[in-house]
Amino acid sequence: MNKIMRIDMAELKVYIENSPQNYQLLGGRGLSARILNTEVPAMAHPLSHENKLVVAPGLLAGTMAPSFGRISCGSKSPLTKTIKESNAGGTAAQKLDRLGTKAIIIQGMPKENQTYIIYIDTKGAQIINTPDLSGKMNYDLASTLQDKYGKDIGVISIGPAGEAKMTASTIAITDQDGRPSRHAARGGLGAVMGSKGIKAIVINAKGTKSIEPMYKERFRETIRDLVDILKQDKSRQSVSKFGTPGVINFLSQLGSMPSWNYHGGPVKGIENIYGETISKVNQSRGGRTHGCMPGCVVRCSIVFHGEDGQHLTSALEYETLAMLGTNLGITNLDAIAQMDRMCDDLGIDTIEVGSAIAQLMEAGVIEFGDDQKVIEILKELRGGSPIGKIVGHGAAFTAQFLGLDRVPVSKGQAIPAHDPRACKAVGVTYCTSPMGADHTAGLDYRDSLSREGQVNRSRDAQILSATIDSVGYCYLALPAKGQVMYEVLVKLLNARYGTDLNTEDVKNIGINTLKEELAFNHSAGWTDAHNILPEFMRMEKLPPNDVVFDVQQEEIDAIFKDLG
Amino acid sequence: MNKIMRIDMAELKVYIENSPQNYQLLGGRGLSARILNTEVPAMAHPLSHENKLVVAPGLLAGTMAPSFGRISCGSKSPLTKTIKESNAGGTAAQKLDRLGTKAIIIQGMPKENQTYIIYIDTKGAQIINTPDLSGKMNYDLASTLQDKYGKDIGVISIGPAGEAKMTASTIAITDQDGRPSRHAARGGLGAVMGSKGIKAIVINAKGTKSIEPMYKERFRETIRDLVDILKQDKSRQSVSKFGTPGVINFLSQLGSMPSWNYHGGPVKGIENIYGETISKVNQSRGGRTHGCMPGCVVRCSIVFHGEDGQHLTSALEYETLAMLGTNLGITNLDAIAQMDRMCDDLGIDTIEVGSAIAQLMEAGVIEFGDDQKVIEILKELRGGSPIGKIVGHGAAFTAQFLGLDRVPVSKGQAIPAHDPRACKAVGVTYCTSPMGADHTAGLDYRDSLSREGQVNRSRDAQILSATIDSVGYCYLALPAKGQVMYEVLVKLLNARYGTDLNTEDVKNIGINTLKEELAFNHSAGWTDAHNILPEFMRMEKLPPNDVVFDVQQEEIDAIFKDLG
Repeated sequence: MNKIMRIDMAELKVYIENSPQNYQLLGGRGLSARILNTEVPAMAHPLSHENKLVVAPGLLAGTMAPSFGRISCGSKSPLTKTIKESNAGGTAAQKLDRLGTKAIIIQGMPKENQTYIIYIDTKGAQIINTPDLSGKMNYDLASTLQDKYGKDIGVISIGPAGEAKMTASTIAITDQDGRPSRHAARGGLGAVMGSKGIKAIVINAKGTKSIEPMYKERFRETIRDLVDILKQDKSRQSVSKFGTPGVINFLSQLGSMPSWNYHGGPVKGIENIYGETISKVNQSRGGRTHGCMPGCVVRCSIVFHGEDGQHLTSALEYETLAMLGTNLGITNLDAIAQMDRMCDDLGIDTIEVGSAIAQLMEAGVIEFGDDQKVIEILKELRGGSPIGKIVGHGAAFTAQFLGLDRVPVSKGQAIPAHDPRACKAVGVTYCTSPMGADHTAGLDYRDSLSREGQVNRSRDAQILSATIDSVGYCYLALPAKGQVMYEVLVKLLNARYGTDLNTEDVKNIGINTLKEELAFNHSAGWTDAHNILPEFMRMEKLPPNDVVFDVQQEEIDAIFKDLG
Repeated sequence: MNKIMRIDMAELKVYIENSPQNYQLLGGRGLSARILNTEVPAMAHPLSHENKLVVAPGLLAGTMAPSFGRISCGSKSPLTKTIKESNAGGTAAQKLDRLGTKAIIIQGMPKENQTYIIYIDTKGAQIINTPDLSGKMNYDLASTLQDKYGKDIGVISIGPAGEAKMTASTIAITDQDGRPSRHAARGGLGAVMGSKGIKAIVINAKGTKSIEPMYKERFRETIRDLVDILKQDKSRQSVSKFGTPGVINFLSQLGSMPSWNYHGGPVKGIENIYGETISKVNQSRGGRTHGCMPGCVVRCSIVFHGEDGQHLTSALEYETLAMLGTNLGITNLDAIAQMDRMCDDLGIDTIEVGSAIAQLMEAGVIEFGDDQKVIEILKELRGGSPIGKIVGHGAAFTAQFLGLDRVPVSKGQAIPAHDPRACKAVGVTYCTSPMGADHTAGLDYRDSLSREGQVNRSRDAQILSATIDSVGYCYLALPAKGQVMYEVLVKLLNARYGTDLNTEDVKNIGINTLKEELAFNHSAGWTDAHNILPEFMRMEKLPPNDVVFDVQQEEIDAIFKDLG
């Protein structure tokens, strides 16, 4: 893993570069941040030839270490107009690392409006013109490519939403079953890939094997320790059993699971989408949970079957059940599963498009609770009426179209399914993270209704997230005491690379990533003035705890002052 | 002119306040900036109850001085998300000043979605619920109100676009003929008025008379001098004769008149829209030019008649002929006049909507030059398909919808009909003015193709614009040597208010206005990073002079460093 693959879509040429020595400890999000900050003008239009898309596995992706296979996609976001990294599971990262690829940098734009794929194997990379793939849905696309290149490829792709350059479009990654169910979903990065004319990156790692660490025994020992920690961790046990929907019972009672477009309050039939219910229903239909990447010990991903016993969707997550479910007044499990499948197929972020549809409901264009209308609108995303395309550009865009002023976004991005009034540390993260309103950028539910201490919690969580996003570790595999990961990482990285890192060094991977991202955003005109949540979240009391987001603004603005 | 009329739309109450003594030299744009900077949180959502709309005549509006009757509308803009002032001629400013009203501040929002008018006369102001006026076009609205309240009222109103809170919507002001042809057009302020539930402000100044200056004779003398200057000024003579379209011959040859969505190059039949042609055609049909406000000596406003000899539109301006004409490849005079009438009626900015339609043409949704399709789309703005509503939100919004990256906007606002590549001082203004891409914020065509000295020219022009926007003077009545206005203003203000101002003091009216606005924008998260034009204007050569916008960025960023 020491090659950088630079793909120039203006020249239609591939350049293989040796990764600079000082990039050794840069991977995933951290590497993406460094490259973007070095190479992309901060004020570039995100869909212009000046912007670049970086695809980078984490620092431990191709090893035997479990749950380290997340892949980072990074770019200047068409949605937030800031730097953005969005990562996902699946098999692509492991394969890329095993092929020795530290990052793919996609730059330039083809002169003609054409559709290409990038095919990568042990011989290198080719840019192939594939007009027949234009417009394909992600599932159809993945199987077409698997038919051609073999079942074992990894596919990184965009659906019609990315091709149409919708600012809520995703980049899909195939999972262990070969399904495009894992998504680098936030920030509209699918539109950047679309603007480069790339429909898919096909990764064929045939002939490669797992990366051997420098010190194998130490590496294996640490893995054993990590697996032990995870097996004894109660919250991970629940995630393993029920997937992310296992939290619904708790979060809906706390109020942090959004309902009725963030007005809050109970939604009839919510027990239909409890993790426990889903598990029962799904098992009776022959569905299961699996690990989205090989070797994962948490295995939280729900492979969901429909009433007919056939596969309907994979990776039915809490956020989707909230943003296309309760936040729209919907608790029809099968309908939400169908929406999830449609979003995966279209390549659109369920959080962003869900929040956009909530704006339609707020304006009375469609009724809260009308799951069939939601399905119709998702169908229209592909073509049809402009309404589909409008929601495909997200919540802020849809609100502007409708003339609404109560818009649950921060820095242009829909606030995800953790209401900051009931989970104040994540509220601080939404305000201050260079990623904007991303729960995965720094989540901490401890003492979550109190305003005290949340800035410190958010900062710690943000540093940890930036660290694990750089090594490719999955945040769903984080033990309850996340900070123990630093010790684990010290051992794994030293054994893998033969380095002599200590905890501070590993923490600095996260800190330096944040600094790089904050620097980019500063150059893109981002100031402390943007560290703010929508007025209604500071004014309207959220049931059942009657809380507002009331963390002191000065304290929030000071969050990174001593980052170094 | 010492009353501030505060209209609270949440309480549906009117409060008459005495203007603070230190507001004496604040009027129009300067007063609006002070009030907004004091009362509106910079990060407020522009359509929320936190935002306010300020309507303020200039400091000399109600006197006998000619061309001082522009009215300032100010607010946080839904389009640029910064402070915005947009001013227009017509009769409202004179009437308000004569009624002793220094400013109207509209705040809060009605609890129910209702339509109101504000009726103002010598007895005060009333808020009247007028459900029957909802949805009316501006022309119909103005005559309905004139039938009810008398021919001699001034009307400040919004059309369906403002009611739908489109971010390209305007605030219309009736002219001397009682037609809603003058528009505070830029920045989507009609949407703010719409969000407050106000369809119109009706001003009945019956029983009032012209404001008597403190020193009448000195005042009259200065007016005589000003009229002499204007009568001898060649450029004003041309404006008087041909209106603003008189510049088309010159600007199209220079290249600064945009064509083909800012790709540039000749447009067949452009001679059909030369000021000279329009004048000839219009006179033959019984049309004329007139002064939009009583007493104007320039009288540049074209009252245009259709082929049938009937009134078709008033105030057919250069910017409209460019943005709905040449920039769309259209030179059909009658079609453009019809579009202008439709935009006035809908209450939509011809610059912004024209640029949005150019994006549709760039994407191939409609053909360049297809004037009938443009008319169809403008019809759809009122209801119909979402495409109309989309262009009603302006160029940046439309480009996002279409996935385009070559977008001629600065700070979210469409660049008007003076291409910065061929008029570099105005390019510096677009980059740095707190108003964003507004030609009226600082225009200077001297040595316009050279990059040298343009920052100084822009700064001088911006200070002068901010000054005359505060006294309500029309920039179309500026003599070629604009700086002589400071001397004129010293004399007029001293004679009007009995003050003892010198040139420096008057210039400080403009400087302090800019400082107030820049401070607001700073608090709204605006930095030097935003002082930038779209990449294509820095890269693509504009015919016929093969120029790019190449003023040094560092020099641009330093423009206000010594403002004091």
